[in-house]
Amino acid sequence: MLAELITIGDEILIGQIIDTNSAWMASQLNQIGINVKQITSVSDDAAHILKAFAEAEERADIILITGGLGPTKDDITKKTMALYFGSKEMVLHQPTLKVVEQIFARYKAPMLEVNIQQAYVPDNCEVLLNEQGTAPCMLFRKGKKIFVSLPGVPYEMMNLMTTEVIPLIKDTYNLPSVYHQTILTAGVGESFLAETIKDIEDKLPAHIKLAYLPRLGTVRLRVSSIAFADDHTKAEINKYIEEILAKIPNHVVAKEDIPMEQVILNVMKANNLTLSVAESCTGGAISSMITQHPGCSAVFLGGGVVYSNALKIKLLDVKSDTLTQFGAVSEETVKEMANGALQNFNSDYSVAVSGITGPDGGSVEKPVGTIWIAVANRNETVSKKFSFGNKRAQNIERTVMAALNLLFRLLKKNVTIK
Amino acid sequence: MLAELITIGDEILIGQIIDTNSAWMASQLNQIGINVKQITSVSDDAAHILKAFAEAEERADIILITGGLGPTKDDITKKTMALYFGSKEMVLHQPTLKVVEQIFARYKAPMLEVNIQQAYVPDNCEVLLNEQGTAPCMLFRKGKKIFVSLPGVPYEMMNLMTTEVIPLIKDTYNLPSVYHQTILTAGVGESFLAETIKDIEDKLPAHIKLAYLPRLGTVRLRVSSIAFADDHTKAEINKYIEEILAKIPNHVVAKEDIPMEQVILNVMKANNLTLSVAESCTGGAISSMITQHPGCSAVFLGGGVVYSNALKIKLLDVKSDTLTQFGAVSEETVKEMANGALQNFNSDYSVAVSGITGPDGGSVEKPVGTIWIAVANRNETVSKKFSFGNKRAQNIERTVMAALNLLFRLLKKNVTIK
Repeated sequence: MLAELITIGDEILIGQIIDTNSAWMASQLNQIGINVKQITSVSDDAAHILKAFAEAEERADIILITGGLGPTKDDITKKTMALYFGSKEMVLHQPTLKVVEQIFARYKAPMLEVNIQQAYVPDNCEVLLNEQGTAPCMLFRKGKKIFVSLPGVPYEMMNLMTTEVIPLIKDTYNLPSVYHQTILTAGVGESFLAETIKDIEDKLPAHIKLAYLPRLGTVRLRVSSIAFADDHTKAEINKYIEEILAKIPNHVVAKEDIPMEQVILNVMKANNLTLSVAESCTGGAISSMITQHPGCSAVFLGGGVVYSNALKIKLLDVKSDTLTQFGAVSEETVKEMANGALQNFNSDYSVAVSGITGPDGGSVEKPVGTIWIAVANRNETVSKKFSFGNKRAQNIERTVMAALNLLFRLLKKNVTIK
Repeated sequence: MLAELITIGDEILIGQIIDTNSAWMASQLNQIGINVKQITSVSDDAAHILKAFAEAEERADIILITGGLGPTKDDITKKTMALYFGSKEMVLHQPTLKVVEQIFARYKAPMLEVNIQQAYVPDNCEVLLNEQGTAPCMLFRKGKKIFVSLPGVPYEMMNLMTTEVIPLIKDTYNLPSVYHQTILTAGVGESFLAETIKDIEDKLPAHIKLAYLPRLGTVRLRVSSIAFADDHTKAEINKYIEEILAKIPNHVVAKEDIPMEQVILNVMKANNLTLSVAESCTGGAISSMITQHPGCSAVFLGGGVVYSNALKIKLLDVKSDTLTQFGAVSEETVKEMANGALQNFNSDYSVAVSGITGPDGGSVEKPVGTIWIAVANRNETVSKKFSFGNKRAQNIERTVMAALNLLFRLLKKNVTIK
């Protein structure tokens, strides 16, 4: 069972927006055993859209389309679908009109003719009601294949996928059950991991594959069945996972596919521990990464974004002398920051970072990319220097991951991690 | 002159990573007048990759390929390109080997056979030296068409695009010069804008187009020439931009294509103003958005991520009584937070947010999505309540944008904005 995703809209092809929808949709399809064969982004151009539909129909069974459903002139998905499926006319879909009216009433905005037009759909489609927006979700069937056009607004698309499209696909097809297990590792490179577990990889049978999924500072190892996994294949996969774990005990962060900060939150919550941060060069990125996760308030108290030296002194009791003598980017400062956070924010653990992310601010002694990180609890403060590159965004991201990794290691020394 | 982007790798098709490279590459190509016709993501499967190459070659002149160049077994881009272009053998590229050796020496990591293999390339390609990583960048020519295979690691790809690929494309082709102008608006919907400037859009000639580019809370209006823009067309576009600006004076944030927070930093820097934040429900996301930008330290002092009530009291002098009587998510609390930030962090302006982002923590009186925002300077505090939806990530993002918009409006009342 294969799917293809087609995103429609000039805004992706001119690089104004990043297509985050496709990755999410692919992961959802993957979970119910459907492989995505291709993801294609095409412009708001009828001929090109029609060609993409035809090519996708040749290769896949399920074609999911996002975007191009807005009220403005450059949005042509609906009429192009009508053309592809030979619709006779556009008809008013009352439930959609009702949603449109409710949305405009809620925001006390004037409802325009173009908004009413949103509720018209091709006569030969089925409508999956979009309760969160004005664009209708349309389903067309062609033989055993289905085409679904979804709005490009991420939360509307996600809601429709979860409540309508995934259940519909499960009902329509008898799906194979792909099985996979993931190991999250940190602080070690892809090629080193590959070399370390080479003998395991070499003996994998054809129906099981291993993928390396690197992301700044972490690598996920994913062992999965190529197709339907029976109990024997599941047991095989579990056995290979155990063999890999035994080879890399010091690099494993989690035996499931969750991000590093979620692992930390889980471990700290299970041990009734609290966390605070003192962020200079990451400017809130560590806090922001942690607070994405629901329920983080059980662990995370907050902290200081101490961009200026004045705030390092005021919020964290960093000594003025330390800043003068060693500089803001130094082991001495970052240790005082970590301990200041522990004391002033009254947490069990703290993370502090200070560095030069660039492009300016570097010197011969401390070039751009120089980062000091400290993590602390009431008994111990661990600090480490990193020398990253000269790209600001990347330095921030790598610092966040390195800080989380140091924190995880300090936790591991102090509490039992399942 | 058309381009296509092909990304290779199962990790995109299984939804493990988001393809951020393509949007960036598309925007770079766009700036030199090259339209991207299609973006295609295919799996690590030779037959599928070959088919994608052939299809792209039919449609486009420039085919840029990312990904699949890692050292592990699932990376097959290099050998598949050798197959497509009929290479006879793999040859060692000495400059690449030197880079590989340097990288391993710098990280004091053991160099493995697979790493040396990275420096081998098909005999009939030209190598564009990747100085930041171990994967070579390969150029193949076929008649007047060019194929370039780039590493998937974003900063390596970006460096190669900037220093090698874009200059090469400029040298190879005589490029048309597309002209475009962008207006950033905030706090108003796409369909309302479309209705307001309908008469202007209706009279646009065929060689000029208008695009609406919405993103949570902001809409960019982009007027561009379809192809080569002579001086007359540029003047026409500038005239339409002026007409649009005159229709929507209260919604314009900037007359260029820069993000909201960059507009704020520019205005504040020009006026020698400083900013601090007091973030509860956004958990560092406002700070993080601001500190992405180089040079932000001239304006941004830092602030408090005050997730717990204890930190709201300690860092911002929010009164315990206020929290008890009105709750953490209230106009009273958020105003005290904004003024506490001004006083304690000693800034000219401050932004404070407190809300319920969900999924838990809502009540009948204050459902999930209830957000209070306050912005303040020494003379005035402005607060506003927002009722967003029930998605955590979206609530955080919308709160960030709403807070920045409120701050921009307070600035606009107080300083002259060009």
